[in-house]
Amino acid sequence: MNKLNYEGFKTTDIGQPTVQRVAPKVRVTTGDDKVVDSIETVVKKTVRDGMTISFHHHFRNGDFVFNKVMRIIIDAGIKNLTLAPSSLTGVMNDIVIEAIKKGTITNITSSGMRGSLGDFVSHGGLKNPVIFRSHGNRARAIEHGDIKIDVAFLGVPNADKLGNANGMEGDAVFGSLGYALMDAQYANNVVLLTDNIMPYPNTPASIKQTQVDYVVKVDKVGDPDKIGSGATRFTKDPKELKIASMVNDVIVNSPYFKDGFSFQTGSGGAALAVTRYLRQAMIDNQIKASFALGGITKPTTDLLEEGLVRRVMDVQDFDKGAAESMHHNPNQQEIDASWYADPDNKGAMVDQLDVVILSALEIDTGFNVNVMTGSDGVIRGAVGGHQDAATAKLTIISAPLVRGRIATVVPKVTTNVTPGDSVDVLVTEYGIAINPKRQDLVKAFAHLPGVPVYSIEELQQMAEAKVGKPKPLEFTDRTVALVEYRDGTIIDAIHEVKD
Amino acid sequence: MNKLNYEGFKTTDIGQPTVQRVAPKVRVTTGDDKVVDSIETVVKKTVRDGMTISFHHHFRNGDFVFNKVMRIIIDAGIKNLTLAPSSLTGVMNDIVIEAIKKGTITNITSSGMRGSLGDFVSHGGLKNPVIFRSHGNRARAIEHGDIKIDVAFLGVPNADKLGNANGMEGDAVFGSLGYALMDAQYANNVVLLTDNIMPYPNTPASIKQTQVDYVVKVDKVGDPDKIGSGATRFTKDPKELKIASMVNDVIVNSPYFKDGFSFQTGSGGAALAVTRYLRQAMIDNQIKASFALGGITKPTTDLLEEGLVRRVMDVQDFDKGAAESMHHNPNQQEIDASWYADPDNKGAMVDQLDVVILSALEIDTGFNVNVMTGSDGVIRGAVGGHQDAATAKLTIISAPLVRGRIATVVPKVTTNVTPGDSVDVLVTEYGIAINPKRQDLVKAFAHLPGVPVYSIEELQQMAEAKVGKPKPLEFTDRTVALVEYRDGTIIDAIHEVKD
Repeated sequence: MNKLNYEGFKTTDIGQPTVQRVAPKVRVTTGDDKVVDSIETVVKKTVRDGMTISFHHHFRNGDFVFNKVMRIIIDAGIKNLTLAPSSLTGVMNDIVIEAIKKGTITNITSSGMRGSLGDFVSHGGLKNPVIFRSHGNRARAIEHGDIKIDVAFLGVPNADKLGNANGMEGDAVFGSLGYALMDAQYANNVVLLTDNIMPYPNTPASIKQTQVDYVVKVDKVGDPDKIGSGATRFTKDPKELKIASMVNDVIVNSPYFKDGFSFQTGSGGAALAVTRYLRQAMIDNQIKASFALGGITKPTTDLLEEGLVRRVMDVQDFDKGAAESMHHNPNQQEIDASWYADPDNKGAMVDQLDVVILSALEIDTGFNVNVMTGSDGVIRGAVGGHQDAATAKLTIISAPLVRGRIATVVPKVTTNVTPGDSVDVLVTEYGIAINPKRQDLVKAFAHLPGVPVYSIEELQQMAEAKVGKPKPLEFTDRTVALVEYRDGTIIDAIHEVKD
Repeated sequence: MNKLNYEGFKTTDIGQPTVQRVAPKVRVTTGDDKVVDSIETVVKKTVRDGMTISFHHHFRNGDFVFNKVMRIIIDAGIKNLTLAPSSLTGVMNDIVIEAIKKGTITNITSSGMRGSLGDFVSHGGLKNPVIFRSHGNRARAIEHGDIKIDVAFLGVPNADKLGNANGMEGDAVFGSLGYALMDAQYANNVVLLTDNIMPYPNTPASIKQTQVDYVVKVDKVGDPDKIGSGATRFTKDPKELKIASMVNDVIVNSPYFKDGFSFQTGSGGAALAVTRYLRQAMIDNQIKASFALGGITKPTTDLLEEGLVRRVMDVQDFDKGAAESMHHNPNQQEIDASWYADPDNKGAMVDQLDVVILSALEIDTGFNVNVMTGSDGVIRGAVGGHQDAATAKLTIISAPLVRGRIATVVPKVTTNVTPGDSVDVLVTEYGIAINPKRQDLVKAFAHLPGVPVYSIEELQQMAEAKVGKPKPLEFTDRTVALVEYRDGTIIDAIHEVKD
């Protein structure tokens, strides 16, 4: 990677430094030469050995673009690339492994990785350590020049011949282009791939012609059915519902639940259930939210329609309903990853966030959270917006005490992703634990009916009593990945698993 | 100014250079400290001797912000500032002259100046030459670092406490924030002044919280009645109507008048009349335009409503009707000055423009146009978007042959602003002249009924026959202003007038 001397994580307090931003090189054109007939042509024009290339992951598991482009880059015999996507999804795994094995990719920075690729990296498949960065930290790193993108390959469901594009119209819509907007603004070369060339000029233009070098027409950019869940799935799991109900109790009885409050609930069954409970509490208490933030789902845009939320600030949509809402509701504002969460900014949305609900693979007695490695030590997760949104005034970790035979609450997390300093409350199906640094919340939640309060150590012991003490994991000395905190310092290293 | 070695203008062909853009310094904050109680406080926090400060001119003659801020800067005893607004309007003249006299302002770059300030500068009132830049060139200069804005003071009709703002809601609305968006993106310090603090978060956010350092609440940012003409004024002047009708004939009989064509008509009585004629021609010929560009008026947004224009690309609104339309019609896209016209770009709107109608104070037999100095040699105009839009495929200069006792068509322009190379047709009330380099147009317009074709020399002689040969202007050797071409080269110098 570009940085040689890393500093260790010290504090969640970003302070008020003054930072010099960077800017791209621009190849001047009138725009009449942008349309390129094939990916081969554009790869030949733009990609050279040793470059940094990027992609976005807004198509999630419906992505066709990543494989199309990487196939051609591998076959062209290009070597030593740094891969710097906003994140990597499962459909990208096979070809990334192939590219690593062939020497096409020698460095990776990503929000996360899962499945076969996580396994491959955890077993030492990539020589140089992967750098995991949160969405806000990726924005910061791009703006600082820690990530210098030579060529960004950005799939879009529509674009005109000069590159004006958005995520809202076409077959493979995904809504907000939030993460990709960073690449469009900062990459030296920006290549759009689309299956839908629109009449010029195409508006609204989330990506603008002033940012785009080439437009390639391809067959299909994505599989609409795999981009997001079509209909929203509410959990029926009694354990998840119990957690969601307790999360709601915590929110509603916190000092932050008042008119004009703001929240980020995220996706997943439990999160959707929280949104449903919260909706009722808002109606009952005649409270309206100023904004909902983050990855957005239809239950959240429904609150916007109902007038219970005044604005939705949208960096990413998790389902079709949310994407369609962005198209039609002007109060759903598309925001880029910098505006969402860059810590080195003139104020990001997460800095103004009251309440956030986040998940955990593990949380330890210091309230540190692991969302990156499994109980076997293998990489199977993503930083996502976890570190970023944990800056909220009330950060709630919602997680079952145990999953099958595996404890969630542990003495020490396998990988520290989000420092305990920024976590306020853990909610499990048995009860909650409050970070001792938040004595105000200890008082506020002392006597909530149906919400037993434990110390985090008690919850850890309850988990251990249920599933026993696991055998310690065995790692080699070799570092296969580094996890940055959102300010660019190193919060943890992930080692090669022994097995 | 920042540049020491200027190059002379060579060609209107920008070519395909690769240019390194610059980026601002960012003072990191969570955003909670942005609201400042007075202009005094924010000036004290931000402005130092020798800095470059900027303003926008979207409030035009209804601007209250410029005077409020400059008053405090002058009274604070700050010296040697470079004033770099998007343009200067008449209401700013008195205080700029005062600031120059007191040594507060020692350098100016602007699109133009008029009235007492133009007179003052033309008579040697400012020691260093003013640099006149087109709107596109200002964007280029900011993106290159030729203009480095230390503090931008931007008045807006609404903003929230973190600086999310637009030009469309409030008492003093003006619509598009097109020119100001450059300052918001590139200035090291961005100060918003507003009379209308909105609930957070305020959307749509043309200016974003990630760009803003301070928000100051002031009494009133502007006088709504003087920002733009309330109702649109159509000319009844038979000479203007005749010119407008001939302009329309030229457009309609050009090879560019076909479905999907694009145009920029500008403001002013004659321009509005052209829009009216053009509307009828579009209906009669079943032709629809892909986009209308530029400073926008209500007659143009009416075409959008009617479906005769598919998109309005809007860098500035000239009247309330156009500003209101931008608020309500999603097909009226706000564009920044870079997207509008920056020549060093990945394609600006002007690069895609088919037809433009521009004005002239003088046009000479080489088709060079002066929109900057009067027949007395005194500065009384603005480059505006003149050089930028003249890159259109069909550039029409619409001007009366003479104005009172003053010839418009002259042997040599007093000040060369837009090179004849980029001008195609001159339309006067007596007939048209076609640039000899456009033999295709000579053929196309050879036999238009009611549109006599002359050589430009013939028109010049007709003008001279009417008003006689003026006494040559007398200037001193001293340069009071430099006019840049849009690529940053110097196309002409303006000298001190002798009188």
